[in-house]
Amino acid sequence: MYCRLYRTMDRFHKPEILVAAKAGGEFLRKFARVSRDSGKWKCAFCLTSDGKAVKVQRTIFSECFYIMAMDELSRVTGDKDMQLEAEQMMEQLIYWVQVDSSGLGRPQLPGDVPTNSMAVPMMLLCLVQQLTEGRGQDVVQKYKEVEQWCVQQILHHVQRAGTAILENVSVDGTELPGCSGRVQNPGHALEAGWFLLQYSAERGDEKIQETAINKFMELPFQCGWDEKHGGLFYFLDVDGHCPTQLEWSMKLWWPHCEALIAFLMAYSQTKKPELLERFFQVYDYTFTHFPDAQSGGWFGYLTQEGKVALDFIGGPFKGFFHVPRCLYMCERILDDLLANKDRTV
Amino acid sequence: MYCRLYRTMDRFHKPEILVAAKAGGEFLRKFARVSRDSGKWKCAFCLTSDGKAVKVQRTIFSECFYIMAMDELSRVTGDKDMQLEAEQMMEQLIYWVQVDSSGLGRPQLPGDVPTNSMAVPMMLLCLVQQLTEGRGQDVVQKYKEVEQWCVQQILHHVQRAGTAILENVSVDGTELPGCSGRVQNPGHALEAGWFLLQYSAERGDEKIQETAINKFMELPFQCGWDEKHGGLFYFLDVDGHCPTQLEWSMKLWWPHCEALIAFLMAYSQTKKPELLERFFQVYDYTFTHFPDAQSGGWFGYLTQEGKVALDFIGGPFKGFFHVPRCLYMCERILDDLLANKDRTV
Repeated sequence: MYCRLYRTMDRFHKPEILVAAKAGGEFLRKFARVSRDSGKWKCAFCLTSDGKAVKVQRTIFSECFYIMAMDELSRVTGDKDMQLEAEQMMEQLIYWVQVDSSGLGRPQLPGDVPTNSMAVPMMLLCLVQQLTEGRGQDVVQKYKEVEQWCVQQILHHVQRAGTAILENVSVDGTELPGCSGRVQNPGHALEAGWFLLQYSAERGDEKIQETAINKFMELPFQCGWDEKHGGLFYFLDVDGHCPTQLEWSMKLWWPHCEALIAFLMAYSQTKKPELLERFFQVYDYTFTHFPDAQSGGWFGYLTQEGKVALDFIGGPFKGFFHVPRCLYMCERILDDLLANKDRTV
Repeated sequence: MYCRLYRTMDRFHKPEILVAAKAGGEFLRKFARVSRDSGKWKCAFCLTSDGKAVKVQRTIFSECFYIMAMDELSRVTGDKDMQLEAEQMMEQLIYWVQVDSSGLGRPQLPGDVPTNSMAVPMMLLCLVQQLTEGRGQDVVQKYKEVEQWCVQQILHHVQRAGTAILENVSVDGTELPGCSGRVQNPGHALEAGWFLLQYSAERGDEKIQETAINKFMELPFQCGWDEKHGGLFYFLDVDGHCPTQLEWSMKLWWPHCEALIAFLMAYSQTKKPELLERFFQVYDYTFTHFPDAQSGGWFGYLTQEGKVALDFIGGPFKGFFHVPRCLYMCERILDDLLANKDRTV
């Protein structure tokens, strides 16, 4: 994130930001990769301050963020070796996701049927967009197939005759039984929405654009917005039952970040005023509830009623990611809208 | 739990309860044990309704509940083979806990230093009490050493010059750095309290009795009781920081179950009126907040303010355990108190 800000925004193009980014990158390169029995690399989810691995998750997500960091840093430093490392780790991820997940370390159990969890194709699509942005056609071509696979996998989450986005579906795109099949994560669906919007914009694919807005933005917003107290719920059950997640009714910072990006991007592409209204609605809730007047940072976790439930600014799952990405992207979209004002009015 | 009720309480000594208990036991025996690469057994945390393993945790807790079920069922059926199986699994557990935990499947990481998490010696102590209850001296002798080890391990959680019970400490009994070292779980400490009280009663060990009451009951109650809204917090930070667990301020059913048992048992052993007052205080909150008027079951999860946050009676972590154990134990203690009324007044 430091690199992205340094690289693309004049006011953050400062030596101290680059120094910090490089130091972080070196630390990750030196300590975050953990060798597994299989001879493959995994990335630690958590390290001690002197670089000892504390926890390695049996998922792909730590590796995803590692790739993102290495790719972005290589763009600033011009380090081809680092870019290659990001692409090699990406190959490894694609293999885990599409061919054989046993290298992740989770024993295969007969009752643990493979599912399509929306996070996986979303993260891969996000990485393809990261790795290909501004690179040549050869890189774009290299990831074209996996990108289309991701989009198809995400679209499988439109369920119930197009009336709901479900977080987990079967690998052949049907609804799963039980509470994990019924779970909805509105903020996640909205994030998928803007990933799809970016994809559609690159290709001028109006059908995907329409699906992104009507299915991945309108539906989660309709079901996910708390009419009584405002804000987006964290989890919901599509049949209206109570989710099993203890934190289901809490208002988390990141779904609001994703909703802001989603509606502003959708407005900037379509100029439909109702999308700008949605943006303002989320904006009002977000900026009256999450920022900490003292530190300027955002709180991460509110009760359903909007009271701060956890009073720290950074925590095990709240780093320097969703808030700066949201502010960065919204600022850029707003700048574009202002710059092109005369054309659009 | 069905077996315990069938075996020890006249009004539950009914054929349909035994049939259900046996059916559950057969299902567990047939499907819950999962063979590992090491050739050792692990128990599944979650199974499909037709017996396929969905998830195997890398901890000892599923195995603990398996042992408890097998031991109790063997007492009703007289199945020596089942009792042997419970004891063999217990040997396995002791090996994992005291000698080598690698069989649990968690890769050893340099930053993941071994800790003394209070749950481990507590569960083992509970199992020793289960396996030895009413059995001959040979069984008692067999587990004497591990029982004493458990008690010592639990006592290591008295920290800060005797002013706090901390949930995680180092293996040599000192405070750990960071938020995991500062975390307190008042309901868990209270549960450890009555485990220690049972231990002390069997031996007439007044020192342990005193520690159980003054440290493992009074301290967690003082720090854990919410003066504003009533009820026990789920997690707290000993330095007054905000815990990192999203659900820290929720009021869960099981800490209240454990508090009821703890204070009533402490009162029955000491006859100190202030302990009975604590019992009544917890009782009033519990019975005005948790029971569902419609079903008779208890809700499991309330907000800090005492509103039902999750409206189901059973869930992934709420089975038929804490509530019936609490009601069963409190009823027996109260019966004893009433039976001995003349002696105690």
